[in-house]
Amino acid sequence: MKIVWAGSRHAFEISDRISKLVANDPWWPDGLGKVSTHGVVYARLIIDGQEHGIHGFIVQLPSLEDHKPLPGITVGDIGMKFGNRANNTMDNGVLRFDHVCIPRDQMLMSITNCGACQVYYVFSNQRNKRTPDDKLSWTDSLAPAHCWNLNVVSPLSPLVYETLVFVRQKIVQDASCALSKAVCIATRYSAVRRQFGSQNGGPETQVIDYKTQQSRLFPLLASAYAFRFVGEWLNCLYADVTQRLQANDFSTLPEIQSCTAGLKSLTTSVTADGKEECRKLCGGHGYLCSSGLPELFAVYVPACMYEGDNIVPLLQEKFTFRNSNIGLRTVSPLRTMAYLGRIEHRMQYRCNVEKAEDWLNPGAVLEAFEARAARMSISCAQKLSKFSNPEEGFAELSADLVEAAIAHWGVKQQLKLLCGIYSLFLLHKHQGDNLATSCITPKQASLANDQLRELYSQARPNAIALVDAFNYTDHFLGSILGSYDGNVYPKLYEAAWKDALNESVVPDGYHQYIRPLLKQ
Amino acid sequence: MKIVWAGSRHAFEISDRISKLVANDPWWPDGLGKVSTHGVVYARLIIDGQEHGIHGFIVQLPSLEDHKPLPGITVGDIGMKFGNRANNTMDNGVLRFDHVCIPRDQMLMSITNCGACQVYYVFSNQRNKRTPDDKLSWTDSLAPAHCWNLNVVSPLSPLVYETLVFVRQKIVQDASCALSKAVCIATRYSAVRRQFGSQNGGPETQVIDYKTQQSRLFPLLASAYAFRFVGEWLNCLYADVTQRLQANDFSTLPEIQSCTAGLKSLTTSVTADGKEECRKLCGGHGYLCSSGLPELFAVYVPACMYEGDNIVPLLQEKFTFRNSNIGLRTVSPLRTMAYLGRIEHRMQYRCNVEKAEDWLNPGAVLEAFEARAARMSISCAQKLSKFSNPEEGFAELSADLVEAAIAHWGVKQQLKLLCGIYSLFLLHKHQGDNLATSCITPKQASLANDQLRELYSQARPNAIALVDAFNYTDHFLGSILGSYDGNVYPKLYEAAWKDALNESVVPDGYHQYIRPLLKQ
Repeated sequence: MKIVWAGSRHAFEISDRISKLVANDPWWPDGLGKVSTHGVVYARLIIDGQEHGIHGFIVQLPSLEDHKPLPGITVGDIGMKFGNRANNTMDNGVLRFDHVCIPRDQMLMSITNCGACQVYYVFSNQRNKRTPDDKLSWTDSLAPAHCWNLNVVSPLSPLVYETLVFVRQKIVQDASCALSKAVCIATRYSAVRRQFGSQNGGPETQVIDYKTQQSRLFPLLASAYAFRFVGEWLNCLYADVTQRLQANDFSTLPEIQSCTAGLKSLTTSVTADGKEECRKLCGGHGYLCSSGLPELFAVYVPACMYEGDNIVPLLQEKFTFRNSNIGLRTVSPLRTMAYLGRIEHRMQYRCNVEKAEDWLNPGAVLEAFEARAARMSISCAQKLSKFSNPEEGFAELSADLVEAAIAHWGVKQQLKLLCGIYSLFLLHKHQGDNLATSCITPKQASLANDQLRELYSQARPNAIALVDAFNYTDHFLGSILGSYDGNVYPKLYEAAWKDALNESVVPDGYHQYIRPLLKQ
Repeated sequence: MKIVWAGSRHAFEISDRISKLVANDPWWPDGLGKVSTHGVVYARLIIDGQEHGIHGFIVQLPSLEDHKPLPGITVGDIGMKFGNRANNTMDNGVLRFDHVCIPRDQMLMSITNCGACQVYYVFSNQRNKRTPDDKLSWTDSLAPAHCWNLNVVSPLSPLVYETLVFVRQKIVQDASCALSKAVCIATRYSAVRRQFGSQNGGPETQVIDYKTQQSRLFPLLASAYAFRFVGEWLNCLYADVTQRLQANDFSTLPEIQSCTAGLKSLTTSVTADGKEECRKLCGGHGYLCSSGLPELFAVYVPACMYEGDNIVPLLQEKFTFRNSNIGLRTVSPLRTMAYLGRIEHRMQYRCNVEKAEDWLNPGAVLEAFEARAARMSISCAQKLSKFSNPEEGFAELSADLVEAAIAHWGVKQQLKLLCGIYSLFLLHKHQGDNLATSCITPKQASLANDQLRELYSQARPNAIALVDAFNYTDHFLGSILGSYDGNVYPKLYEAAWKDALNESVVPDGYHQYIRPLLKQ
C-alpha cells in the first residue's frame, strides 16, 4: 500500500530546520548531489490533516538502472564551497520532491511509540507479532485506535542522545588532530625561517625565537595537547554512559550532553581560529596552497557549524545555570560541576599568589578559573531573575550567557609545562573577566603574564620535539612548510614548477593579448 | 659598457628580505610569473669585492619578440594560492638570475648620492653636466674619486617615507571598503534568515533579532564606519604632509609614519577577522562560494602580511614609547599623542561613571581609553628600563609592546550611535587591560556592558539602512546572501543549477564506478 503524504505544494515538509531552505528543500547532505541512490528523509507526517510528528523515511532517489532521478524528484549539487579542494570533493546536494509516493514499509518505525499505551509499534517488512499485515490500508490496523496517535521518540530518548553525544565527542577528538596538524607546520616553519637580527654578518634570527611568535604559537601548541586529553576523557565518558544506558541508568546523560555540547563549541572555535593563526604565523608563504594551511582551514571551518552552530550549544548550558541556582544541591555525577558545590567558598575566594612562580601551581590556576566561572554563572543567574519572563531574560542576556559558558569550559584541563602555558594564556586572555569578578588582582594578573613569558622561553627548546611527537608523515601533513627535514625552500621552488601555469614557458594568451600591446 | 655584478653563484643577491627565499630568489611579485617584460630589481651592488649598498636596476626578463626568458633568466609562477579564484587570477612570480648582464644605464640613480660630498650623482641616458660619458668604463669617471663611495638614499629620505605613508593610508581606506562589503552581506542575510522562536505556528524569529547575533555583527558594522572615517582622516594627513615636504618641512613625518604603521596593522587585522566572522554569522550558507564571503576573506587576508606583517608595524611604535618616556615633553604635532602630554593626569585618572547611561558620553569613554593606553605605555617603559641592553628588553617584552600599541590605536575614533557601540565594544573586549590599569572598576565595566546591550537594541531598526548606505550594487557585492532585495533562497537554488557538476544529470564516472558497485 502506498502512502501519499499530505502537504503544501511539495510532497515533503522537511523537519531538519538547519536545512530548511528553499521552500523547505533539503540542502547540504553529503553525497546527495550526484552519487547517492537512497536517502533517509525526515518529514512531518500528516494524515487526513492531522500532524503525527516527525518521522524518518527511506526514499529511493534515482533509478538503479540509469541513475536518472525518479519521477517527481529533482536532485543536484549545491555548487562550489570554500577552498580550492577542501570539501569540494564532496557532492553536497539539494533535493526537491513533487508528490512522490513511497511504500508504507519505508517508514522508519523502530523507535516510534504510541503516545497513549507506550507500546513500541514496529512497522517493518519483517514478520513480527506486532506488525500489521503489509496489505492493510493505512487506516486499517490490528492495533487499538489510539495507537495511531504516533509520537516521535521522546526528546529524552537514550538512543537519540547517545548518538548526539557520540558524534560530538568525535568532533572534539578530531579538533585535536586538526589543530595539531596546523601547529606542527607552523612550528617547524618558524624554526626554518630566519628574519632580521643578524650580528656581524652572521645568520639572522629564527622566527621561533621572537617572543611575538611564541606568544601566538605556543598557546596553540598547548591547546592541541589539551584537546587531545579532553577528547580522550570524553571518549571514556562516552564508553561509560553507553554501559550505563544498557543498564537503564540515565543519571549521567544530562551532564555528558552538556559536556559534549560545550566542549564541541569551544574546541572547534579555538581550532578554526588557531588554524588561521598558524597560517598567518607562516608569513606570506602561509598563503600558498603548497603550505597546506589554506586547505586545512577551509576544510575545517564547517565544524563550527555542523552538529550545532557554536553559539547554540553554549546556550544549551542551562544545565550549568540550573546548577548555579541549585548551589549546594548541585547534581553533577561526572563532577564537572563539582566546583559549584561549594558556592560560598567560590564567592569569597581571594587568590593568594604573591610571586610569578606561584602561578606554576596548577591548583592556584584551577581555583582562579573555578571562582571566575562560578561568579559569572551566579551573576547571570541574578540578572536572569530580574526578568518576569525567563525566556525573555535568556534572549536578552544570551551574549552574557555565552561568555559564562565559555568560562565554565576553560576549567577542566590538566597538563605539565604546556599546562602552564595553556592555563596562564587563558588567564591572560580572559583577564577582563578574572579582574571583573575580583578573582585576582591587577598585580597578580601582571605576575601571571610575567610567568607566561618565562614559560615560553622554557618551551622553546622543546617546541620541535613536541610537534614531532604527533608523528605525522609529510604525506599526511600535505605541507611543504611543515616538512620533517625542514628543507623548505628547494621544495617550494620545485613545487612551483609543477603548477599548471608553468607547463608552457610562454603563457596562453601571449600572442592574443600581450604581443599586440608591445608591438603597437 | 656592461656591468657584471660580483656575487655568489647567482648574479644578483636580492636585498628584499621578505622575498629572500630560495638562495635569495625573488618570490611573490605580482605579474612577474608569466606576463611582465621588465622588472625593477633591488640588489646589493658589489664592485671589486666592495659593498655599495642597495640599488635598483631595470632588468628585461623575456625576449620582446617571443616572450621566452632571456639567457640566464628563469621565471615562472609560484603556484596556487588561498581561495577558489581570489588572487589566483594574478601570476605571482619566482625569478632566478645566473650571471645576467645589463647595461650600466639601467641602474636607477636619481636619488643616490655620494656619501662624502652629498652631490646627487645622476647616471642616466640624458645629457647632464654631472653625467659621466656613457662610454667610460666603470672605474673611469669625470667625478672625484670619492664620488664612487655611493650610498643608498638615506633611510629618512622624504621620498621613501612619503611612498610608504601613501601606500599604508590607502590600505586603511581599503580596509573600510573590504569590511563593509562583508558586513553588508551578513546584515542583510541576518534579516532574511529565520530560525526558531515560532509562536503559535507564526513565522520564526529573524536571526538579526538575537542578541548573540547582534553582539557579533553590530561591532563589525560600527568598525566599518569607524575605519571609513579613519581612512579619510589619514587621507587628509597625507595631503598635508605632501605639502609640507614640498616646503622642506619634515616635522610631521615621524608621527604620520607611526600613524599609518599602527593603523595599517589594526584595521587590516580587524577586517580580516571580521570578514571571517561575517561568514560564520551566515551559518552554513556562508560556506558556499555564491555567498561571496569565502572569496572576500581569501582575497583580503594578504593585507595582514604585505607592506609589513601586522606585528612588525606595531613594534615600530617606538615613537609612542619614546614619547611615553618624554612625558610632558611630548612632541606630537598631529596631536595623536597629545593625551600623553598630561601624563600625571592620566596616571591619577579615575573613571566617574555611575550609571549605564553615563557611558553614552564620548568624553567618558575617550578618557578611559587614553588612561589605559598611557598606563600601558608607562608600564612597558618601566619594564624596559630594567634591561641593561634596550634591544634585549624590546625582544623579551615584544608581546607586551604589541598590546600597548594596540591600546594606543583604539583611542582616536569619534562616531554617534555606532560610536557608542564601537567604543563600548572595545572597552568590553579589552576589559582585562582596563581593569588591570584601574582605569575603571568592575562595576563600571558591568555598566558599560549593560549599556552596550541597550545600544544593540537601538541599532537594530536601522541596521539594514546602515548597510544600504554603503550603496553597493549586487554585482559589486558578488553575493547571493547579500542581495539587495533579500530574495535569497530562489537565487541560491538557481545558482546551484549553474554549477558545472549539474551540467549533466548523470555524473561522469557513474558507469565506471557506481553502476558496477550496484550491479555486483
